[in-house]
Amino acid sequence: MRVDVLTLFPEMFEGVFGSSIMGKARDKGLVSLNTINFRDYSNNKHNTVDDYPYGGGGGMVLKPEPIFAAVEDLPPSEGKPPRVILLCPQGETFTQGKAEELAQEEHLIFLCGHYEGYDERIREYLVTDELSIGDYVLTGGEMAAMVIVDSVVRLLPGVLGNDQSAVTDSFSTGLLEYPHYTRPAEFRGWSVPEVLLSGHHANVEKWRKEQSLLRTLRRRPDLLDKVELSPKEQIWLKEQRQRYPKS
Amino acid sequence: MRVDVLTLFPEMFEGVFGSSIMGKARDKGLVSLNTINFRDYSNNKHNTVDDYPYGGGGGMVLKPEPIFAAVEDLPPSEGKPPRVILLCPQGETFTQGKAEELAQEEHLIFLCGHYEGYDERIREYLVTDELSIGDYVLTGGEMAAMVIVDSVVRLLPGVLGNDQSAVTDSFSTGLLEYPHYTRPAEFRGWSVPEVLLSGHHANVEKWRKEQSLLRTLRRRPDLLDKVELSPKEQIWLKEQRQRYPKS
Repeated sequence: MRVDVLTLFPEMFEGVFGSSIMGKARDKGLVSLNTINFRDYSNNKHNTVDDYPYGGGGGMVLKPEPIFAAVEDLPPSEGKPPRVILLCPQGETFTQGKAEELAQEEHLIFLCGHYEGYDERIREYLVTDELSIGDYVLTGGEMAAMVIVDSVVRLLPGVLGNDQSAVTDSFSTGLLEYPHYTRPAEFRGWSVPEVLLSGHHANVEKWRKEQSLLRTLRRRPDLLDKVELSPKEQIWLKEQRQRYPKS
Repeated sequence: MRVDVLTLFPEMFEGVFGSSIMGKARDKGLVSLNTINFRDYSNNKHNTVDDYPYGGGGGMVLKPEPIFAAVEDLPPSEGKPPRVILLCPQGETFTQGKAEELAQEEHLIFLCGHYEGYDERIREYLVTDELSIGDYVLTGGEMAAMVIVDSVVRLLPGVLGNDQSAVTDSFSTGLLEYPHYTRPAEFRGWSVPEVLLSGHHANVEKWRKEQSLLRTLRRRPDLLDKVELSPKEQIWLKEQRQRYPKS
């Protein structure tokens, strides 16, 4: 997969694209991660890329020319045409399903604005997807791009080792994870639950499934509507709801 | 405000904490941003910070000792006790309201795990808040911590200049932003809407409010339930719903 990020702050990506899983995926040649400073495509001698909004009001607006020029100057995509993704609070909310969809692509281009607005013609005639990573305001699209790239790259074949992918991911089972414990069995007087030390595999599984259901019930009951439960699990969950009506 | 981030990948934060708004806030002395590698607090000669899970199964679990030790070795908080924030998919979903709440604090500590699970005793006896930035799986908590720190720091008094804060933020008005346009008035045959070039202030305002409502109606109708609209706006919106029943 090839990822090109258009940004005014390429230095923000260095630590992230070079470390951990993304760094390893890059070293293995599984993904190419590039940043492009679109200020290099400014069409004026002051090197500006934004201007005042038509119709007045505060704030600045990113001009269309440098962004169109930067995208058009990228080496051509080899396979499928690229997805051109704009990061903005007005976009579709990013989810794991979207990450899985984007992981099927060959070339992703991210446009990161930075507290300015975008000229609407960028959205209308250049962008294929507008995404938001959540209902909060960020200074720029850079961190949103990092989040999306990370969640997509870790899904590419060969990127995660067995150790890492073996962790049961919350959003892939549809339930929140059960509690984890490791050594020491007692730490400052706080003990690991007996069942986990028992060596009784079936009891461990049962405890984990129940904890997973219970945590989901208490913290994210909305997720329970989307998972398939066995009749036994449904009965157990119903009892829990009755026992803890406020949870 | 003081921010301490416990991570195994401090180098991921260098570009982000040094650039743009966070870099400026740091230079102005409005926030201190520190990273601590909790591997330095490993209690064994192999410098490991994780171990196998009790009860079996794949994946590794972060041990309690190094994380408790790293937090307890931080210089003491001067004012209010710190909020100790764990980044994890099981956490409460982070929102702009939470950013505003955290911006009132004096000291935030972030714990970033990295594809491992956390020993449950960390959650139970050390952490005050568990947060998730959205329903997707990340390689680690690092990018989630960056996102939260950015959204909080930009709310601190004196951090944003007038130019930046003047931009109407989507989640502060409760509606999505209206389209922005800047020079040139015509780009590749695509023109700026006439009304924005008219100089007629009231018409511009009306157009913008309607566009904002329309975009919210089409993309995020859930947000409309939470905003107060004038009777005129309600009637206009009702007409739009009838005109575009599928939107």
